[in-house]
Amino acid sequence: MSKEGEEVSNKQILFRDYVTGSPKESDMVHNDSTIRLKVPEGLKAVAVKNLYLSCDPYMRALMTKHEGDPSHIVPFTPGSPIQGFGVAKVLDSGHPNFKAGDLVWGITGWEEFSLISAPETLFKITYTDVPLSYYTGLLGMPGLTAYVGFNEVCSPKKGEYVFVSAASGAVGQLVGQFAKLMGCYVVGSAGSSQKVDLLKNKFGFDDAFNYKEEPDLNAALKRYFPEGIDIYFENVGGSMLDAVLLNMRAHGRIAVCGLISQYNLEQPQGIQNLFCLLTKRIRMEGFLVAEYYHLYPQFLQSTLQYIKEGKIVYVEDTVEGLTNAPSALLGLFTGRNVGKQLVVVAHE
Amino acid sequence: MSKEGEEVSNKQILFRDYVTGSPKESDMVHNDSTIRLKVPEGLKAVAVKNLYLSCDPYMRALMTKHEGDPSHIVPFTPGSPIQGFGVAKVLDSGHPNFKAGDLVWGITGWEEFSLISAPETLFKITYTDVPLSYYTGLLGMPGLTAYVGFNEVCSPKKGEYVFVSAASGAVGQLVGQFAKLMGCYVVGSAGSSQKVDLLKNKFGFDDAFNYKEEPDLNAALKRYFPEGIDIYFENVGGSMLDAVLLNMRAHGRIAVCGLISQYNLEQPQGIQNLFCLLTKRIRMEGFLVAEYYHLYPQFLQSTLQYIKEGKIVYVEDTVEGLTNAPSALLGLFTGRNVGKQLVVVAHE
Repeated sequence: MSKEGEEVSNKQILFRDYVTGSPKESDMVHNDSTIRLKVPEGLKAVAVKNLYLSCDPYMRALMTKHEGDPSHIVPFTPGSPIQGFGVAKVLDSGHPNFKAGDLVWGITGWEEFSLISAPETLFKITYTDVPLSYYTGLLGMPGLTAYVGFNEVCSPKKGEYVFVSAASGAVGQLVGQFAKLMGCYVVGSAGSSQKVDLLKNKFGFDDAFNYKEEPDLNAALKRYFPEGIDIYFENVGGSMLDAVLLNMRAHGRIAVCGLISQYNLEQPQGIQNLFCLLTKRIRMEGFLVAEYYHLYPQFLQSTLQYIKEGKIVYVEDTVEGLTNAPSALLGLFTGRNVGKQLVVVAHE
Repeated sequence: MSKEGEEVSNKQILFRDYVTGSPKESDMVHNDSTIRLKVPEGLKAVAVKNLYLSCDPYMRALMTKHEGDPSHIVPFTPGSPIQGFGVAKVLDSGHPNFKAGDLVWGITGWEEFSLISAPETLFKITYTDVPLSYYTGLLGMPGLTAYVGFNEVCSPKKGEYVFVSAASGAVGQLVGQFAKLMGCYVVGSAGSSQKVDLLKNKFGFDDAFNYKEEPDLNAALKRYFPEGIDIYFENVGGSMLDAVLLNMRAHGRIAVCGLISQYNLEQPQGIQNLFCLLTKRIRMEGFLVAEYYHLYPQFLQSTLQYIKEGKIVYVEDTVEGLTNAPSALLGLFTGRNVGKQLVVVAHE
């Protein structure tokens, strides 16, 4: 290998341009590029081989430019590879914390190989007696999201009534399991009978329903929660949120983790039942997992223990090949995925 | 006076029947009744002469029957006197905590004299070197609402940017003054230039605007809060809330105290910008002052001190005579009142 490193071909998925409404596959462009697999002298970067890429609903928000909103996350750069969470193997490092052969998870590019210029944001993977792909889900960003969203934002207590929407997704399936471990009563909603079956028979939810078969969500929630809901883990927004508000109990808590039903709408649905916040003294709070990364070590420790004891299980929906990543991402918004959606770029 | 007490005439305002949409004066019926001013033997009640009655926006909610909502406050009883906060003088007492001559504030009836059967809910007035009417506002329920809503729910810090809607009202004028005492930057909105003038020149708000003269509330808020809003004390709801959400800062807090713009609508306005809760990690929380009555003594102590030092002022809108109470109450919903709306039934 020369000083600049071997030049290899590097398939990429580029972000075409900002999107309004529903994104299409053509908003993500296949590109054949090349890359040198050696970090240039003096750069504190790492060169990685991407193994697993994660498809997450928040990525939709980065496809739109939100003018004049300083608090919003920086959107994707048109013409550059899509950025997202992934699991990767370090091939070369200019950073003292990393060396060739290290496995990492964190933000990488939708391409075969990436040069990551700020590797401080990456987490080093030290436990490898679990599927490596878990670091895109159960042991990665979605897992920590479920953990902090439930434990830190929802302030759960044993015996409380918990409702989780998008409950079979990357985050929801874990929220339900964490809630059961806490001694709560948990019901989940999902969009197919297969998913409802998973919730009840694999993840141990007390009950579950297919929201697509419920013409009246308010009536459905009254059926599953005759005593009302103490905690709502909000992944979807829209009419589900309006129905939940009517069914919350006094001093209920709503953790706003995502609003996937709204991301592709040009105009979000209006929420009409916010008066319930007042009459029922509800706390509704949004959170971003990036502000809780300091809790990752304690999350990892306890979750690994639960996995070993068989007390937490995880379902992944795996797609093979970088070329299939765009359709996998878009599938999140129609509910095509069953469990955590990830893309295998390479098997180590 | 006989054993049963003197029978005197007792003018009343009765609640006619449940209301949808905007209540009218005819929903409150004048009635000439009589009452004996002695508590029947064995009853732990008090007989009171009502002095000041309070008109508060929450009373609108009690005019509608909310079917199937167990957490909602009990509505008014058709055919019975309107119930609300007031200041009264005890004429006779069957309760060990009260004696004739005591001044009290709490829930009483819209009538000249009331027999209050559960006087444990009344607060005894011991400081009388302030206008007695203050116990319907500054030193009563609205005052405590401002105090706990701001200090307990909003978690304020010195230097933060605070926005108050309905800012010249019974609660709003105090929230602004509490916020200034805390060292915050405070802007209020109100519905007339007279009220805006009060906010700036009497209550010491840093700035204020007339929302009726702002065709674009989002643009108005951007002008008054170029750095964004840390704390929103919500009294109105509707399109103001939607505009505020767009202008909140990261980790902002919204205390939901009231939603007066929505109370007379048969269908509440939809709120579209709840995605801001997520992107800005906002906490939005409803509260009811009744759950904070244990803080009344500390509130009273500190507020009396501020009054003595001239650091808190209060504006009341006083109407003379029980007969004018219905129109005074309805005036709240068109913003006719300037400051705390109260009704004088009798001057001691």
